[in-house]
Amino acid sequence: MRLIRFGPVGDERPGVMAPGPAGDPVGYDVSGVVADFDAGFWSTGGLDLVRGAVASGKLPRFELDRVRLGSPISLPPKILCVGLNYHEHARESGMTLPTEPVLFMKAPNTVVGPDDPVLIPPGSVKTDWEVELGVVIGRPARYLPDPAAAREVIGGFVLSTDLSEREYQLERGGQWDKGKSCETFNPLGPWLVTADEVPDPQALWLELTVDGQRMQYGLTADMVFPVDYLVWYLSQFMVLEPGDLINTGTPAGVGMGQQPPRYLRAGDTFTVAGQELGSQRHECRQAGPELDRGPG
Amino acid sequence: MRLIRFGPVGDERPGVMAPGPAGDPVGYDVSGVVADFDAGFWSTGGLDLVRGAVASGKLPRFELDRVRLGSPISLPPKILCVGLNYHEHARESGMTLPTEPVLFMKAPNTVVGPDDPVLIPPGSVKTDWEVELGVVIGRPARYLPDPAAAREVIGGFVLSTDLSEREYQLERGGQWDKGKSCETFNPLGPWLVTADEVPDPQALWLELTVDGQRMQYGLTADMVFPVDYLVWYLSQFMVLEPGDLINTGTPAGVGMGQQPPRYLRAGDTFTVAGQELGSQRHECRQAGPELDRGPG
Repeated sequence: MRLIRFGPVGDERPGVMAPGPAGDPVGYDVSGVVADFDAGFWSTGGLDLVRGAVASGKLPRFELDRVRLGSPISLPPKILCVGLNYHEHARESGMTLPTEPVLFMKAPNTVVGPDDPVLIPPGSVKTDWEVELGVVIGRPARYLPDPAAAREVIGGFVLSTDLSEREYQLERGGQWDKGKSCETFNPLGPWLVTADEVPDPQALWLELTVDGQRMQYGLTADMVFPVDYLVWYLSQFMVLEPGDLINTGTPAGVGMGQQPPRYLRAGDTFTVAGQELGSQRHECRQAGPELDRGPG
Repeated sequence: MRLIRFGPVGDERPGVMAPGPAGDPVGYDVSGVVADFDAGFWSTGGLDLVRGAVASGKLPRFELDRVRLGSPISLPPKILCVGLNYHEHARESGMTLPTEPVLFMKAPNTVVGPDDPVLIPPGSVKTDWEVELGVVIGRPARYLPDPAAAREVIGGFVLSTDLSEREYQLERGGQWDKGKSCETFNPLGPWLVTADEVPDPQALWLELTVDGQRMQYGLTADMVFPVDYLVWYLSQFMVLEPGDLINTGTPAGVGMGQQPPRYLRAGDTFTVAGQELGSQRHECRQAGPELDRGPG
């Protein structure tokens, strides 16, 4: 099943994308069934409620091209990110291959929708792109016994863009988090595909283009640490909660890795896509002095 | 004013600590006035509502020693931490003094109450203590123009313990976040003191003892980057939200800095205190295979 959230920024409603009577995908409004796709949704069997409602055939229907899509999940309790998790990307970053997953974090209020503008921070000259497979946690996970146990706690998968300001991340003292949490820096969506529909998360392609030129293309089979291993590993260091997002790393082809390096500027457009995950399209704009939109 | 939250783990209610009829501090239940001390509280003028209710003299009253105190704020949208922010602590850590604030993050579900047990993770041998001045954000902050503007967005201050697993933080690959987010790793409280009652946050002492022995004592005047500077600085890299917690760094005397290093073990008791901020007392226990409590 494909979960979506639709409506104006900050006022999104939960929905499902599924074939309509003519076979083409349409939207079904499930806001009468569940409040939102949030921690409570995962914790209280919301997925079963939604499945039942879709099967009933009685849900209100809408045309997908007439609505704005927001992030398919509400703001996560936390966003965990894994660095250097593709062999080729570690090489282009000039970093040695990690012997354990590299963890950093991202502020949850960076999340925006799949076609929302991305804001270049004032003074930023190194805003970079990263396409990633996002994992959404569906059940609490604490000290999982082994990677095989991870599959039980994964709610679904989502296309995730991990925007990164490389100067802030690498040249401004200390830890990577500083370059990862600017507003609009984590577009998600268009949909969350439930885990049952992705039998092998290591068999997906991911792609990113900037102004029409393909910059990233990679296969999740190239991950240094696969999804199940990551979820198991992270559960040894903290309690994973329903609704948490794990960004599992990016393939080669980021801006920092180009010769010479190339970064996003206001006016650029980039697209992001992933197998089973749909596609995103973002215009880059300069962040203004006033906040013109919230996360969502 | 001093805000508290009281009641069983996960079911805390908002209250105020203030002098009772006999002059000694008692608790006032404000759960009929505001839902919780969360983002909504700060965003919708909850503080004024609570002030008015206290002034009315009609609030239900309770004895403080008959209740459990939880964290004085509900789970923060994000926890930002500043590393190496006291001159002496940077020295004992063998690190050079930072030229810009060092930022890392901590999972919000690490928050527990001021006298709750602290759990030593399975296999951990380097669980360390850090007493800190915590800053709670009261208004959104985005690209603040200067440090002077920070005072307007600070809701209050809170005693914060930033537990740290040094092996996870420093020896397991990559970024510090990995050693900062184990369950129970961020005790808060006993109360939040509102910003108006702390005219100078750089004039407070902080103290921590382990099994009766004073290990940390420091003055916030020793901070490398003072509170207003930190809030201004962080607002250049992300949008600060009402309810966010900023841990502003720890003075010298952590376990890692002892000769030889000393770490917390199950059975140890440690106390934490701060001027205007109250005190905490924690028993250390070994984390069991089953989660016996949530955050709170």
